[in-house]
Amino acid sequence: MPTPLLLETSLGPDEEAEWLAALTVAMPDEAIITGGDDAAIRRNAEIAIVANPRPGSLQDLPRLRWVQSLWAGVDALLGDATVPDVPVVRLVDPSLAGAMAEAVAAAVLYLHRDLHLYASQQRRREWRPHPVRSADHRRVTILGMGEMGRASAALLRTIGFPVSGWSRSGADCKGVTVHSGREGLWSALAQADILVNLLPLTPTTRGVLNRDVFGRLPRGAGLVNYGRGAHVVEADLLEALTMGLVGHAVLDVFENEPLPVDHRLWATHGVTILPHVAAPTSRSSAADIVAGAVRTYRLTGYIPQGVDRTRGY
Amino acid sequence: MPTPLLLETSLGPDEEAEWLAALTVAMPDEAIITGGDDAAIRRNAEIAIVANPRPGSLQDLPRLRWVQSLWAGVDALLGDATVPDVPVVRLVDPSLAGAMAEAVAAAVLYLHRDLHLYASQQRRREWRPHPVRSADHRRVTILGMGEMGRASAALLRTIGFPVSGWSRSGADCKGVTVHSGREGLWSALAQADILVNLLPLTPTTRGVLNRDVFGRLPRGAGLVNYGRGAHVVEADLLEALTMGLVGHAVLDVFENEPLPVDHRLWATHGVTILPHVAAPTSRSSAADIVAGAVRTYRLTGYIPQGVDRTRGY
Repeated sequence: MPTPLLLETSLGPDEEAEWLAALTVAMPDEAIITGGDDAAIRRNAEIAIVANPRPGSLQDLPRLRWVQSLWAGVDALLGDATVPDVPVVRLVDPSLAGAMAEAVAAAVLYLHRDLHLYASQQRRREWRPHPVRSADHRRVTILGMGEMGRASAALLRTIGFPVSGWSRSGADCKGVTVHSGREGLWSALAQADILVNLLPLTPTTRGVLNRDVFGRLPRGAGLVNYGRGAHVVEADLLEALTMGLVGHAVLDVFENEPLPVDHRLWATHGVTILPHVAAPTSRSSAADIVAGAVRTYRLTGYIPQGVDRTRGY
Repeated sequence: MPTPLLLETSLGPDEEAEWLAALTVAMPDEAIITGGDDAAIRRNAEIAIVANPRPGSLQDLPRLRWVQSLWAGVDALLGDATVPDVPVVRLVDPSLAGAMAEAVAAAVLYLHRDLHLYASQQRRREWRPHPVRSADHRRVTILGMGEMGRASAALLRTIGFPVSGWSRSGADCKGVTVHSGREGLWSALAQADILVNLLPLTPTTRGVLNRDVFGRLPRGAGLVNYGRGAHVVEADLLEALTMGLVGHAVLDVFENEPLPVDHRLWATHGVTILPHVAAPTSRSSAADIVAGAVRTYRLTGYIPQGVDRTRGY
């Protein structure tokens, strides 16, 4: 009888139940325990499967070998000092890169074709065509060139946009110049008619979308944030919108989600709000990937590679 | 001294002057005459260059050899019985096909990613994510598979959408099944999660977007009209929106443009209004194409092929 899998989440009961169901379908031979406050179970658990676990909920697990996230973003987990020093494994789901690329293409074409302007003109019953630029005259810069960034860059290039990237490593990817470092960031920003943020949230990238960055963009640039809410210094963004440094921002992620109903961003001119829908985790796909890792561990003892805690991803 | 070129438009004086300037740059050796009511000029003119000419304005041109449109759509011209029986040549500008393909991709991704829903939710400060489907599960059907339709189909396929077409000839194009005829239309509509109209306006296609067609779509389908306003039977569209047969419509063209300020479509729920911006003619590109045709005629007497008046394009 294998040791139980501990499922720790801070999700609502319905959502947790749906995750439990998906994991059970994917791993019918495993015992998956939620709300694991039974001391015997905690003593034996080797694997914790987590989705935004409550701070402190991974303490007192003496035999824990690894923490498996059901999501790609593990910033909250790494910020919790009580998480034991075992590998923290983020979900890498290749189908998410495709979903993100579609979301990036949708937001970039929305800005490129002025659909945000026409929406507000429609409310005023104003018929006013704006000049049409072709995609090859609209430069897009992507911050963060991991799997999602590379898939997005490839799709944008296919549509016809010139694409640059910026990443920690600066490793070039097919047909896309990837900058790195501080100077590289300034170069990447100077050619960003539309700036797309796909960075992971780490101590280094927190607040990266700030006044300095907005001031380096071509005046009136478009901004798409599909990273994390904490990448944006909100006061700086509001200022940049007021000053016309940023022409329009598509924001999909926020420090507090759902975005509170009294939040000023809902009604800020020049902002499109999306409810965190760029690349939602597919439960069945995530459960299959986790099941594969668990099966390998049971057979071979192999523990998947965890994130680099210094880098944060 | 070559015979003068007659420029006949119903444009405002500024826009006509800009066309005249572009044509003069492209053909510095030609005499281009606007407001041609001089009898001597009308007697000699062999070529009329037109942009939405006033009905009757092409009468009394005894030596006219051909009418060159500055635009692709010549439906108004063909509806004017006073236009002499000479070739009516529409503008075929390859760069327009690229612009149309981008416009189609923008509208399809806008519908695909529910950006219309999130815009109205934002106005209500409502945070409500909708399920994300991947492009390969969203079928798009294009009505009209000329240059623009083929370019649009190719781009949509690259993004990942399954694409079908419908055209008069039904000639297949790379990787896209193209239906034709009445039965073919029903097949094409049954798989149109999003329906894109790019047909030319002809007596046959007028009113093609009607109750019968809306009733054959998968319930809640998206509609994009980049053809002509007269393709849509407006009362039928309003009914289809109310009944939920059409989920959302992106309309770029209207019977009267600009869309009058008191028109009900401005405020119809489920309608996005664009001010005829899909693939605007580039003046310099159009002038270059027309100049090439005029030069060939002067040198060789060759008259470009006119539209088929029976077909209407």
